[in-house]
Amino acid sequence: MRSLTIAVVQFSPRFGRKEENLHRMEALVSGTRADIMVFPELCTTGYFFASRDEVAAVAEKPSGVSVEFFRVLAKRHDAVVVAGLAEADQGRLFNSCLVVVPEQEKALVYRKTHLFYKEKQCFDAGDTGFFVVHDAVRDVRIGPMVCYDWRFPESARVLTLLGADLIACPANLVTEAWHLVMPARAIENKVYVAVANRAGTETRAGEELVFKGSSAIYDWSGRTLRQARPHGDTVIVAEIHPAETRDKFFNPLNDVLRDRRPEFYAPLTTIRKP
Amino acid sequence: MRSLTIAVVQFSPRFGRKEENLHRMEALVSGTRADIMVFPELCTTGYFFASRDEVAAVAEKPSGVSVEFFRVLAKRHDAVVVAGLAEADQGRLFNSCLVVVPEQEKALVYRKTHLFYKEKQCFDAGDTGFFVVHDAVRDVRIGPMVCYDWRFPESARVLTLLGADLIACPANLVTEAWHLVMPARAIENKVYVAVANRAGTETRAGEELVFKGSSAIYDWSGRTLRQARPHGDTVIVAEIHPAETRDKFFNPLNDVLRDRRPEFYAPLTTIRKP
Repeated sequence: MRSLTIAVVQFSPRFGRKEENLHRMEALVSGTRADIMVFPELCTTGYFFASRDEVAAVAEKPSGVSVEFFRVLAKRHDAVVVAGLAEADQGRLFNSCLVVVPEQEKALVYRKTHLFYKEKQCFDAGDTGFFVVHDAVRDVRIGPMVCYDWRFPESARVLTLLGADLIACPANLVTEAWHLVMPARAIENKVYVAVANRAGTETRAGEELVFKGSSAIYDWSGRTLRQARPHGDTVIVAEIHPAETRDKFFNPLNDVLRDRRPEFYAPLTTIRKP
Repeated sequence: MRSLTIAVVQFSPRFGRKEENLHRMEALVSGTRADIMVFPELCTTGYFFASRDEVAAVAEKPSGVSVEFFRVLAKRHDAVVVAGLAEADQGRLFNSCLVVVPEQEKALVYRKTHLFYKEKQCFDAGDTGFFVVHDAVRDVRIGPMVCYDWRFPESARVLTLLGADLIACPANLVTEAWHLVMPARAIENKVYVAVANRAGTETRAGEELVFKGSSAIYDWSGRTLRQARPHGDTVIVAEIHPAETRDKFFNPLNDVLRDRRPEFYAPLTTIRKP
């Protein structure tokens, strides 16, 4: 059964310094050999925007410099690249996640479904919904989600139902609760989970956000394969076996997807709190 | 804000000895003062049935001796009682969970939705779906689920959407993975979670099941309020504040239910693996 190497890049951008951030990321992974590389949320620009205007000043179309940077990086490293960036589309602004497969012409863009805190004042809520990127060359199916999507079991579950072997989660996490939940996402779905977080702090208008680093890679049994330290930039690497996630059995009579009973799950799609 | 006392009863029945088990449970909780008492799955009969005939021999209608026992117990302790038992209904057999509110005439019965391992050969899959029991006297909304329901994020999520403050989970758990997942159920739903597990072993046809005890009560932030030891019978007690779970905000801009986006969750109710 084929194994792949995944690299999770813990990188702390400097706010607003895009070119510098791209150069620093390039240098950080220059010695990394991996089949998949996951970078943090909004890794090209920094995170703590104070207004839509600030986002608009740095957000990019799919022809932008960051997108081109990750396309070149993917080709050079012969790796799938997953990375968060600010996206502009006809006046709308998204907290997006790029998925670049080197052999595929078009980079795919996931737009963050669940916005956290002041993102609601700076971005539009994502309109792509969840989807899985199938890389036939490496034989892996990658389901992107971004940061706060973690808190909703629906995110990883939908990705799993759509065939994901690996949940790739660019993040800028400022709480610790995710450490208690990400292993659950792996166990309940029998998928790998890779969280690329950033470290450091950003201060705007007297409010400081402290990013918690500790980027992690979990196997499909919820075991932590690798975990970064809380501070600083680093790359953690693990070997994964994507095909192991595809048969969801865990004893001769139980299978975590076949045992689902959707006829009793209607409230999940029908109940909406005002 | 009103607080309630919840007692989780870790009790290991002797297989097939119903009267003895009822007496032992009565003695075990005789000194317990609580507003809510949760007993394990199939706590009146034991767990490891080898056939439907074996279940049929001990399963009860709502007029049965175990149901009556728990009704009397609820009245005597002035407590809501949640307890697992084998239920018979016109030839069908369910791994059920009784919810007795002392002031309410009718005991409610939840029938386990997701059957584990050889339960599939001995029980019918539950047909009640998930529901929440509202106890207006104690001001608490209890959502019952049973054991293997834990592995499906849909179970606790549906109960939360239906208004549960507390997930009460009678169990006979034989793996350890639930320790990594139950705190996630609390966090992602902002609800209390109480797991009444059993300990001990049962052997049938040369196959031994080892039950893992370690019954636990988690608060709505995923913190372990109390945890029992892995072995033996015991009662753990904690104070909970059900009303704290009803406002799902966790910062001025985020709310774990209002932030849901059901329009992107369709696969949860439409995808069924063959």
